[in-house]
Amino acid sequence: MDPHAALMWHGGQTAAAARLYPAAPRPWLDLSTGISPWAWPLPAVEPQAWQALPSRAALEQLEFAAARVFGMNDTEQIAAVPGSDIAIRLLARLLPADRVAILGQSYAGYRAAWPEARVLPFDKAGNADLMICANPNNPDGAVIEARKLQRLRNIRIVDEAFADAMPEVSMLPHRNGAIVLRSFGKFFGLAGVRLGFVVANKPVIRELRGLLGDWPISGPAIAIGTAAYCDRAWQGLQRHRLAQGSVRLAALLADHGLQDAGGTANFRLCHAPDAPGLFTHLCRAGILVRPFIDRPGQLRLGIPGTETDWTRLETALLSWSKRND
Amino acid sequence: MDPHAALMWHGGQTAAAARLYPAAPRPWLDLSTGISPWAWPLPAVEPQAWQALPSRAALEQLEFAAARVFGMNDTEQIAAVPGSDIAIRLLARLLPADRVAILGQSYAGYRAAWPEARVLPFDKAGNADLMICANPNNPDGAVIEARKLQRLRNIRIVDEAFADAMPEVSMLPHRNGAIVLRSFGKFFGLAGVRLGFVVANKPVIRELRGLLGDWPISGPAIAIGTAAYCDRAWQGLQRHRLAQGSVRLAALLADHGLQDAGGTANFRLCHAPDAPGLFTHLCRAGILVRPFIDRPGQLRLGIPGTETDWTRLETALLSWSKRND
Repeated sequence: MDPHAALMWHGGQTAAAARLYPAAPRPWLDLSTGISPWAWPLPAVEPQAWQALPSRAALEQLEFAAARVFGMNDTEQIAAVPGSDIAIRLLARLLPADRVAILGQSYAGYRAAWPEARVLPFDKAGNADLMICANPNNPDGAVIEARKLQRLRNIRIVDEAFADAMPEVSMLPHRNGAIVLRSFGKFFGLAGVRLGFVVANKPVIRELRGLLGDWPISGPAIAIGTAAYCDRAWQGLQRHRLAQGSVRLAALLADHGLQDAGGTANFRLCHAPDAPGLFTHLCRAGILVRPFIDRPGQLRLGIPGTETDWTRLETALLSWSKRND
Repeated sequence: MDPHAALMWHGGQTAAAARLYPAAPRPWLDLSTGISPWAWPLPAVEPQAWQALPSRAALEQLEFAAARVFGMNDTEQIAAVPGSDIAIRLLARLLPADRVAILGQSYAGYRAAWPEARVLPFDKAGNADLMICANPNNPDGAVIEARKLQRLRNIRIVDEAFADAMPEVSMLPHRNGAIVLRSFGKFFGLAGVRLGFVVANKPVIRELRGLLGDWPISGPAIAIGTAAYCDRAWQGLQRHRLAQGSVRLAALLADHGLQDAGGTANFRLCHAPDAPGLFTHLCRAGILVRPFIDRPGQLRLGIPGTETDWTRLETALLSWSKRND
């Protein structure tokens, strides 16, 4: 297998990159994911959260806190899950469908959950029994208007993994029967917590809870998630700096001849005349970005978190564009 | 609904108990679970474990460390899961079976996963397509010999949630095709971590991984689990004090007329001439034990963790036996 293949499946594989480019300067600057570089400041976790079985009441508080952020009042239509990736896999089991459409080139996990699905544009997907899309899309940031998604009658799974920093994109609270996925880790910069949410009609929530059992979320994840969703001031700050960082990144890339191909507040996608060459060049500088097997002329970059990281990226881009002048 | 019903479904419901017995002294002494009262001493968790997506390599290290403790060499036959309760639910989906047998009165989660199952003794379960048992059984500690389980040909799920403190009971590494579940939280006293393992043939492991997605376990759970399974000295100490505690608890209960009805190193089950009366009496003393809807004459007690807790239990039992003299 091409040793680069692992780097094309998911982001975050700095260990694999370090094996491929052993001479690259350490530590690696990981811009290969859409996870915010600024983590919500973790409080000390009470020993009790690790030791005891998480209580149903604590789980309900987490779901209530998240629902409020999503603009919902009804906590009977939301279920916390240990990561939205697992939710995608479980929904594929719970919702049998003959004709499945994935909207556009999108998150690799959809193909893993529905290997038989067809990749279709929005206006061709109306006849599918089930359609799944990321909104905004990952990696190109394409947005489907909420009212278009509301109008359809098929089973719709709308993955709003990157909507926390762009809440105007979200369908919530007006799902009109769609199943909406939300992700905790990307916006709060805490992907290791493994926390996400499924918002759906009660029968789906009930079946999902049946599959997840009585303690789906770890005690620390419940405590951290509840406190983070209640911290509205920090969420405002985070939205602001992600939006700014995304604009700055698009401009930096364009300055070096890498035309913007879309993105979200969490990442930018760019056209690169020689994307594999640039990927290798950045790896040699210890900077991991995200190539895509089905988008050979593009690269996705997350937002650098510090001025040092911005400078490191800029320096590497400068030496690349000079080499190619 | 009977407000006591919640206390009969799972242990650990001290908040529900406190609402039912508001005058009980605080803090509650929770003896209603089989979770060890002594927790493996938690190290500081690196911020990176919370922030980054857990790597596949780290997950494999966790599975390797656990497999070694279970006496296995082959990590292709083990999958870490976010709690064995969720594994039970997922296996019920993955393994369609017409005739399902639950061996004896056992863990409530089996009934939730297979509502249509029949409760049968071991020698009547040979014709079931799928049988599930806890070994040792919860709550009566009944043990089925490994060679009897090895001999059967039907799909067998053997839940060894309480085998860490009694490794001589485990089938592992000689499963002979059975699916074996292990639990992290009960032995290590860290149930809030949500970590367990499924040991099975490769096709089942592959399907299970497909359902769990690419990041089934949180970063901190991977770090904590790996370090705890490598800490053999602590495991020896834990096995010793659990075994001692269990013997001491059985003797204390017998001293107060509560005849032993079995148990494991993590808990004892006892006959109580007036179990509902004793349950209420203990609740009024702020001590929560575990009643069972299908065992009205019995109560299960976990091991007290400190001399203060032993004294508190002894005092409450003394006043109960005096009242009933």
